[in-house]
Amino acid sequence: MDGKPLRVTIWNEFRHEKANPEVAALYPDGMHEALAAPLRAAGHDVRTATLDDPEHGLTEEVLAGTDVLLWWGHRHHRDVDDAVVDRVWKRVLDGMGLIPLHSSHFSKIFVRLMGTTCHLKHRVAGERERLWLVARGHPIAEGIPEHFDLQPEEMYGEPFDIPPPEELVFVSWFQGGEVFRSGCCYTRGQGRIFYFRPGHESYPTYHHPTVQRVIANAVRWAAPRDVAPRQFGRSAPLEPI
Amino acid sequence: MDGKPLRVTIWNEFRHEKANPEVAALYPDGMHEALAAPLRAAGHDVRTATLDDPEHGLTEEVLAGTDVLLWWGHRHHRDVDDAVVDRVWKRVLDGMGLIPLHSSHFSKIFVRLMGTTCHLKHRVAGERERLWLVARGHPIAEGIPEHFDLQPEEMYGEPFDIPPPEELVFVSWFQGGEVFRSGCCYTRGQGRIFYFRPGHESYPTYHHPTVQRVIANAVRWAAPRDVAPRQFGRSAPLEPI
Amino acid sequence: MDGKPLRVTIWNEFRHEKANPEVAALYPDGMHEALAAPLRAAGHDVRTATLDDPEHGLTEEVLAGTDVLLWWGHRHHRDVDDAVVDRVWKRVLDGMGLIPLHSSHFSKIFVRLMGTTCHLKHRVAGERERLWLVARGHPIAEGIPEHFDLQPEEMYGEPFDIPPPEELVFVSWFQGGEVFRSGCCYTRGQGRIFYFRPGHESYPTYHHPTVQRVIANAVRWAAPRDVAPRQFGRSAPLEPI
Amino acid sequence: MDGKPLRVTIWNEFRHEKANPEVAALYPDGMHEALAAPLRAAGHDVRTATLDDPEHGLTEEVLAGTDVLLWWGHRHHRDVDDAVVDRVWKRVLDGMGLIPLHSSHFSKIFVRLMGTTCHLKHRVAGERERLWLVARGHPIAEGIPEHFDLQPEEMYGEPFDIPPPEELVFVSWFQGGEVFRSGCCYTRGQGRIFYFRPGHESYPTYHHPTVQRVIANAVRWAAPRDVAPRQFGRSAPLEPI
Repeated sequence: MDGKPLRVTIWNEFRHEKANPEVAALYPDGMHEALAAPLRAAGHDVRTATLDDPEHGLTEEVLAGTDVLLWWGHRHHRDVDDAVVDRVWKRVLDGMGLIPLHSSHFSKIFVRLMGTTCHLKHRVAGERERLWLVARGHPIAEGIPEHFDLQPEEMYGEPFDIPPPEELVFVSWFQGGEVFRSGCCYTRGQGRIFYFRPGHESYPTYHHPTVQRVIANAVRWAAPRDVAPRQFGRSAPLEPI
Repeated sequence: MDGKPLRVTIWNEFRHEKANPEVAALYPDGMHEALAAPLRAAGHDVRTATLDDPEHGLTEEVLAGTDVLLWWGHRHHRDVDDAVVDRVWKRVLDGMGLIPLHSSHFSKIFVRLMGTTCHLKHRVAGERERLWLVARGHPIAEGIPEHFDLQPEEMYGEPFDIPPPEELVFVSWFQGGEVFRSGCCYTRGQGRIFYFRPGHESYPTYHHPTVQRVIANAVRWAAPRDVAPRQFGRSAPLEPI
Repeated sequence: MDGKPLRVTIWNEFRHEKANPEVAALYPDGMHEALAAPLRAAGHDVRTATLDDPEHGLTEEVLAGTDVLLWWGHRHHRDVDDAVVDRVWKRVLDGMGLIPLHSSHFSKIFVRLMGTTCHLKHRVAGERERLWLVARGHPIAEGIPEHFDLQPEEMYGEPFDIPPPEELVFVSWFQGGEVFRSGCCYTRGQGRIFYFRPGHESYPTYHHPTVQRVIANAVRWAAPRDVAPRQFGRSAPLEPI
Repeated sequence: MDGKPLRVTIWNEFRHEKANPEVAALYPDGMHEALAAPLRAAGHDVRTATLDDPEHGLTEEVLAGTDVLLWWGHRHHRDVDDAVVDRVWKRVLDGMGLIPLHSSHFSKIFVRLMGTTCHLKHRVAGERERLWLVARGHPIAEGIPEHFDLQPEEMYGEPFDIPPPEELVFVSWFQGGEVFRSGCCYTRGQGRIFYFRPGHESYPTYHHPTVQRVIANAVRWAAPRDVAPRQFGRSAPLEPI
């Protein structure tokens, strides 16, 4: 492992796995545990949190002790408490990395950080997705081939109503004829955000080694820097006026 | 005039002018009228709206008939109704241009579109601001010299907690020793946003011809395009799967 | 027409049309004339220039009188004189717009302005290209549907060795499984550059009305602004030191 | 040290130090050695190369064994052999980091990678430069205060004829009234470039600990990733056509 271990929190809605046997078969311990395993194996200090935990598992203490937060939500975005969203938002601006996955494009936290609707096209048809790397030298590209396929995957298509990514790492090709900006980097305050498209709950996407590698790279990329807090507000002159 | 006339709405808090004789002396009809005059002279169809108008003057009808909205707010951001903010936000995403001026960095609409706190440093000390053009070929730069001075002006200093501008047009130098990203372009949905720093209420900034020219250029740049509405949601394949 | 007429020069290698009857059948007067027709119809002042003209038709006088230069080259990039490339480069930095089309990704002028190799993947297989609009509010998007198809077209695929586009307007989907950043905006000096992918010589691409509309929009977008020349070099202080 | 040691090569013109006693007094072993010391202390594998070495010290072997190249040139850019520039250019595109310092804005390699003139304003008047951090969460910002002063320094002022930085990390304020984009990130091919402004030869800038920290951070940021070479050229379809 290049670099020190990070404190990673993986947040999962964790309701599909309980309600849908097909999802449970793929992710018997929840998607969060599938996401956690390779990060633990890489030496990171990983904990998990879910929607139905008290405060959704994201207390002030948990967030204060989190370097990078992964987020997977889908049907129940509205059940996430606004006070918790506000708390996460502040931590991102203070430097915590955030990695919203797949249907988390519609999560309250991502929508708030983007300032747009984050709408898109979608289709569940078991089709092939091919992710093309368009930023070959990016830290998130390390060890990733020029393209890799996922099949089956859900289609997400343009238009994707996000601000133009500051760095665009992946563009997806879909068998049904669409394209999608699938790996998008942003900075907000001192925090770094990487939206990564793949991961429909009824497909085994998070067991795919290349997907796991992308996420591991993104965790490293999104890690907070050792910086002093920013100083705002009324300010005395530094030079004579 | 190059290009067709646009429908411009100028929104002003319009309370400083009533409460502070110093501001009233500079802007006897309100800052909105000072901003309106050169845009009317350029042939645009300009109307104004203020905080204390019903619905803040920003009804559905007014917004539907607005190509570009200028916004000046300062002390009373919190008095702007969330329902009106939501309405403006939707119109921006649908293509209406937005030009938040000066202390509108803290307006609800700008903060929502940016996704950050929009905090900054500030100081009212009557000092000199020098705006340097750093994007010489940008439409907003047309007819603007490489730098121009405003004195007195309020200081706004870095850090400015905004997403990195998609295009950075001006950087300010301040006599007291600070710099500031003073002209910042963004796109959100189909709308274009230009934040422009100058314009403290107790200084005659909006009577300055170069400031007026920048704002006129920005109105032209932010004008909506003739585009079909975007299609989101469930989508049939275009190719066989 | 919104805005004043522009002085457009269309440069074409104009050798395929002479050597290849298939190309001549599609473009009997050369691709430059096919490109010129809709721009003339829109009221612009259009002239053409070709590789085998003296100085390739790009004398100082011609360039000085050009607002926007379109460029189509393919097999004979190396035959373009370096002195002419240098001349075009200076004019772009001074504000002339440049629209390199299709295989002009490898033209000396584009490579020089980008600073990279501009390599890509390619395949001539008569397949379908579908261009997706990913910047809905961009001036170049005006009147363009969310996607449009070209068939047959040549495939260009990622990786495309360009600097990250400052604005990405189109992403292409190809039937054979690739994606490509097909509409890319850059600024260099005071000039604006729009690379647009479609246009293989043995296909009727430049007769397609949507392609023509994209190019017409790009001409308008790339038009130079009325700006004073930039001042460089040794400079006296503006403030006491 | 967070992360593995890197192979760093520091290139210096190394003529001012021989010709000018004032420079020699500040940098008795050359600026390259002053730059090398803190990087060596940080554990990197550092070598140096200078203009008057055979092949300017930048043989194929040296470049193949270099992760990140620092470059300091000033008066003698024209003496750098084009074949060596070409060699460095290829290595950057293949992933080698490049950190052009100060007057290297005019080096052949930087100009080639940027595609513009890289002109700017300048003045040697012993004035104060204040660098403001405008990208607080950037890896290059780690451990750097919100602003820091250098005095005396040479003034570099806008306009700076570069492509818009992909990431803007520092903006300088100068006592004489100018501003400058002082820390600029770019990607070209698989390589990462960080232009950093400070470092006039007759001032002790490279002994300043904050300057040293910025450069150390930039070396880490610019390090190449473990990526497969990119595949260009004719390409068979991945899907049936």
